[in-house]
Amino acid sequence: MGSSTGENVRLTVFGQSHSAAVGMTLEGIPAGEKIDFEEIKRFLSRRAPGRSVGSTARKEPDVPEFLSGFVGDVTCGAPITAIIRNTDARPADYAALSDVPRPGHADFTAHIKYGGAEDRSGGGHFSGRLTAPLCIAGGICLQLLKKAGVTVVSRVLSIGNVSDEGELGQNAPEGDIPTVSAESRLGMRRLIEKAASEGNSVGGVIECRADGLPAGLGDPIFGGVENRISAVVFGIPAVKGIEFGAGFASAKMTGLENNDAFVTENGRTVTATNNCGGILGGITDGMPLVFRIAVKPTPSIAAEQKSVNIRTGEEVALSVGGRHDACIVPRAVPCAEAAAAFAIYDMLQGRKKEI
Amino acid sequence: MGSSTGENVRLTVFGQSHSAAVGMTLEGIPAGEKIDFEEIKRFLSRRAPGRSVGSTARKEPDVPEFLSGFVGDVTCGAPITAIIRNTDARPADYAALSDVPRPGHADFTAHIKYGGAEDRSGGGHFSGRLTAPLCIAGGICLQLLKKAGVTVVSRVLSIGNVSDEGELGQNAPEGDIPTVSAESRLGMRRLIEKAASEGNSVGGVIECRADGLPAGLGDPIFGGVENRISAVVFGIPAVKGIEFGAGFASAKMTGLENNDAFVTENGRTVTATNNCGGILGGITDGMPLVFRIAVKPTPSIAAEQKSVNIRTGEEVALSVGGRHDACIVPRAVPCAEAAAAFAIYDMLQGRKKEI
Amino acid sequence: MGSSTGENVRLTVFGQSHSAAVGMTLEGIPAGEKIDFEEIKRFLSRRAPGRSVGSTARKEPDVPEFLSGFVGDVTCGAPITAIIRNTDARPADYAALSDVPRPGHADFTAHIKYGGAEDRSGGGHFSGRLTAPLCIAGGICLQLLKKAGVTVVSRVLSIGNVSDEGELGQNAPEGDIPTVSAESRLGMRRLIEKAASEGNSVGGVIECRADGLPAGLGDPIFGGVENRISAVVFGIPAVKGIEFGAGFASAKMTGLENNDAFVTENGRTVTATNNCGGILGGITDGMPLVFRIAVKPTPSIAAEQKSVNIRTGEEVALSVGGRHDACIVPRAVPCAEAAAAFAIYDMLQGRKKEI
Amino acid sequence: MGSSTGENVRLTVFGQSHSAAVGMTLEGIPAGEKIDFEEIKRFLSRRAPGRSVGSTARKEPDVPEFLSGFVGDVTCGAPITAIIRNTDARPADYAALSDVPRPGHADFTAHIKYGGAEDRSGGGHFSGRLTAPLCIAGGICLQLLKKAGVTVVSRVLSIGNVSDEGELGQNAPEGDIPTVSAESRLGMRRLIEKAASEGNSVGGVIECRADGLPAGLGDPIFGGVENRISAVVFGIPAVKGIEFGAGFASAKMTGLENNDAFVTENGRTVTATNNCGGILGGITDGMPLVFRIAVKPTPSIAAEQKSVNIRTGEEVALSVGGRHDACIVPRAVPCAEAAAAFAIYDMLQGRKKEI
Repeated sequence: MGSSTGENVRLTVFGQSHSAAVGMTLEGIPAGEKIDFEEIKRFLSRRAPGRSVGSTARKEPDVPEFLSGFVGDVTCGAPITAIIRNTDARPADYAALSDVPRPGHADFTAHIKYGGAEDRSGGGHFSGRLTAPLCIAGGICLQLLKKAGVTVVSRVLSIGNVSDEGELGQNAPEGDIPTVSAESRLGMRRLIEKAASEGNSVGGVIECRADGLPAGLGDPIFGGVENRISAVVFGIPAVKGIEFGAGFASAKMTGLENNDAFVTENGRTVTATNNCGGILGGITDGMPLVFRIAVKPTPSIAAEQKSVNIRTGEEVALSVGGRHDACIVPRAVPCAEAAAAFAIYDMLQGRKKEI
Repeated sequence: MGSSTGENVRLTVFGQSHSAAVGMTLEGIPAGEKIDFEEIKRFLSRRAPGRSVGSTARKEPDVPEFLSGFVGDVTCGAPITAIIRNTDARPADYAALSDVPRPGHADFTAHIKYGGAEDRSGGGHFSGRLTAPLCIAGGICLQLLKKAGVTVVSRVLSIGNVSDEGELGQNAPEGDIPTVSAESRLGMRRLIEKAASEGNSVGGVIECRADGLPAGLGDPIFGGVENRISAVVFGIPAVKGIEFGAGFASAKMTGLENNDAFVTENGRTVTATNNCGGILGGITDGMPLVFRIAVKPTPSIAAEQKSVNIRTGEEVALSVGGRHDACIVPRAVPCAEAAAAFAIYDMLQGRKKEI
Repeated sequence: MGSSTGENVRLTVFGQSHSAAVGMTLEGIPAGEKIDFEEIKRFLSRRAPGRSVGSTARKEPDVPEFLSGFVGDVTCGAPITAIIRNTDARPADYAALSDVPRPGHADFTAHIKYGGAEDRSGGGHFSGRLTAPLCIAGGICLQLLKKAGVTVVSRVLSIGNVSDEGELGQNAPEGDIPTVSAESRLGMRRLIEKAASEGNSVGGVIECRADGLPAGLGDPIFGGVENRISAVVFGIPAVKGIEFGAGFASAKMTGLENNDAFVTENGRTVTATNNCGGILGGITDGMPLVFRIAVKPTPSIAAEQKSVNIRTGEEVALSVGGRHDACIVPRAVPCAEAAAAFAIYDMLQGRKKEI
Repeated sequence: MGSSTGENVRLTVFGQSHSAAVGMTLEGIPAGEKIDFEEIKRFLSRRAPGRSVGSTARKEPDVPEFLSGFVGDVTCGAPITAIIRNTDARPADYAALSDVPRPGHADFTAHIKYGGAEDRSGGGHFSGRLTAPLCIAGGICLQLLKKAGVTVVSRVLSIGNVSDEGELGQNAPEGDIPTVSAESRLGMRRLIEKAASEGNSVGGVIECRADGLPAGLGDPIFGGVENRISAVVFGIPAVKGIEFGAGFASAKMTGLENNDAFVTENGRTVTATNNCGGILGGITDGMPLVFRIAVKPTPSIAAEQKSVNIRTGEEVALSVGGRHDACIVPRAVPCAEAAAAFAIYDMLQGRKKEI
């Protein structure tokens, strides 16, 4: 059905870009966990618009209201539901689009799927706004993972042709465009500004890394770490590819180059390299979990594009008005962390108590 | 739990490399569908060893026995179960490995996950042999899709640094290494032979394409086509990345370059390009569905590698004996088609009858 | 995980007796369905307190706010979420109970399950208040079923030893205690008043009937109509038994007595009797679906009972203060209809579009 | 989809009465568990035909072949699949029935559901034969439960109007008709013999009891113990009702009578009575879990009945030939234990490891 996911913890995301609210329900979070609501707000602020260059000027406070699942700030075992009201809705901006699907958007496919009954305002349920509830869920999972010694960090690995220099370590890179190299960040910013000035947009790649995972997480075949992280991460709009460890580069390697040798380090079996991205046979090996996602350029652009009036069949020129990001990659960074955190926490919760 | 997947049709895969049998159960296939069992055997023969250069000499007839779900050769609505006996089992070959995990394999992670009770013979449940039942399921789904006008074809896009020339069309490329260009195939074959002669292996990329899909398949957010195909495809051992349409290349594009313009063609709304790979907002748009997967080089190689005796902690040199493929990419091609066919058929079955 | 159910339509219920709100999410409702919100309010009012004799005086408006899933009053295919604010919360009434579990309630078991972190106010997530969101979902399903020609009605079959006379037909019985016989209703009312005056409570049996169901609904083995209705209906607090058709009475019959003969009526195959309650092999046969549920007496009673202080282990006398129903059976009637309507609609949605 | 169930452990049942085999797959059983295969055979023999008076003379060895999931007799974490070959198939007996559905059977409803493609031989996938794989699964779970200190026993509480005298305790009653009272057993046997001699059949009630369950099992609302046991138990053909604890009798009680007072016993909080059957709010309270199921009389009877030729619409007289039980209640006893054991083990496996 699509709007929910998870095996041991169940996440359901609801709402449309301009419905009364967007929100989420998390089932399966254990009772007795203290959650820092301020920390969740800070996490949400990382995906908020207006934070980095070229991002939409829409201002939403993005303050979640927790409706259930807590006694005070401690989980009580009941499903956690939180909502964010859509206070800054401006459906009028989108009125002109109604019969002309925006290229690269879900407008056309939603129209076919729902037979014309879809919510066309601002992308409806397909809007990037739905990553806000994803980030509420992720923010909760990140706190729970932290208690378990697991950290999740990420960076913008590239924007267009500008790549970040250096290796992503355990610590979270900072900056409006989180990169390891401040210079790379500068180059990325310039690229985004250029795209913004041209009414265009740019895509990029995000790299995510989780440390502190125990070996043995995940399940065989379809329950592997790759399957499960992909199943959540592709829930972020605009993601068109994912790779783990060396990923597509490993397809160019030989077995001798790609295999990660086992070695003993401080009495513990580890691998000398990490081409497998911390995953063998779909199961974690205790090394850092590393994956990268390809984010396509925002489809909403002011520059003129070709589309079709789906009512009349007439080909028309379209320039997408309203508020848009020239590059959503920086805002997608916390979303990627949220998706990873949820998927990882879900797997951790799959470990059964011995009976 | 991992060994089953699917929302509207449920696939469960069981067996170990050297258990009595491997097999699969498919629930949710409608009654009254005539299945060509010979066609399934032919499909299975494409993943059989010994078919292309450098593949393992293990000879298994791979003839499925259908235990249930049919009256004659017509489905009766009950779960379909088929098994393949493991007749050519040679557990002895693997005995030496028992305490030394093979680099790049699930040996180590399975050991941790199952606390030493894992089936170590030939990779147990993590063996590539488990793709045989996947192909039974895929073979059934391919026949059902064909009746619905949907075809799935694929090719080896690259082996190591050798890429296939030309575009993948609607027709299935032929050859032991299925490529569009016969010359590219020659280059790939040479590369595999070289790796085989060196006791090494090589990886590659497979491209898959489905035609005839109606627009409107898939679900929002976590139920998108990308999520669901990924969730199945990563069930094929050695897959380390997936991308849809332009995929990682789209991350280097601008919105103007990447957006697929809508145009009217024969009274139907189509896109002028297909950078989105036939998927917008997770929903099919009626254009060909295109994805590519990165297959890492087979980890089992004769060349000497480093590993650790997990019982003693001692570092040891390891050369994997037994029968192995120098390149599993060609054998993974029908597996990719099977995974795609299952995922697509599952989505088609998600379309509800109107009430 | 418990708070969600359904295979083709997914219902998630959230909230606690005294959290900010209770609510529900319904995924999988088709787009384009017009819903009458006033009709839902009327349906909810049937489970509202204060409507029949001996029911709690707690006054909640029970007006759902629909947060998502609609464009105007027409479904748009996105998950439907609705909440009801807990405006009349009086946690103070329950303070005294905190360490003394109420006999017959979930207080003790929730305490063990959640290790003391459970929400103790008014039963938390186990409160009968959670049937309000169930009724929102059921109210939506009832409207959709009606369009499909399916009606669901029910009656109070017995309160204590007073049974309703006559047969339940296709039309909904009326009255504060919905019965076929007005005289029986009078007897039931007297019994409830007596219990109320004694600080005691009484249980009863509810009978539910659905007409207009097509034959062929349901799935084999664990997916039978009985399995699925039970799985939802036991979600109503206080339900301790369920039977279909002749139910427990059929256990006293012979095959000749119990078997429903097939006969031809107006060219249609029907059964001469309906001891199977419209279900054979778990699948509907096109006859009315009939089931009955046993509702235990409300455990919250003013009369003195024995309990234990779970902190000290000391045995104590307990009289449950606050607002309580002397008989929840009449209020459980719409809940039973809601549960049945959801389960039936879920099965109807399981019918696949032919491909 | 019906033929699979379970949340933390997944059971899939496959096969038809006269397909090559019937069987089952269990996913989610932990690795490292030693299973006594002989014990499973003994358990299966309790549901075998020909064991008690009036049961069918069909002789099947019912010896399961374990195809996967084990290294020797120890589970390895992979899915467990076992099959039983249908060696004694006699489809000819059933040929005459083909167009005339047997009253009380799934023949008619399966025909409608599967559009005529259903397997008509011996009830196909709806046959009581499918309880053999259920008993394999249950036999495994019973062994695992025993290690955890949990026992499941049951008895025939009544056949027709003959009831068993006495209370069901922790120990399993013995006899071809397992009852507490040998005298009651005698009366039941006479009743069955009478029905058999008349070409008729009789129904009955089975009582099940589980001891040693920890308090705190189960989940709120739809995940309660009642919901989950019902969802499995109605998978046994002929079950038409279920009640927990006092069940339907509690509907006649007052709160003071029905509420189970909490008392302290050896420093532990227990209840003085057990009207709730060990379940409060859907969660176990640590007292014995008690439920009863109504089993309708076997519909297959030699005595003449009315039916309809579904091809011609003509009303015909029908006498069911072949091999049949005059009373399946005794054979259903191990099935009830198997269903309960699976559901309970599934809940136990839902307890998460602390992270």
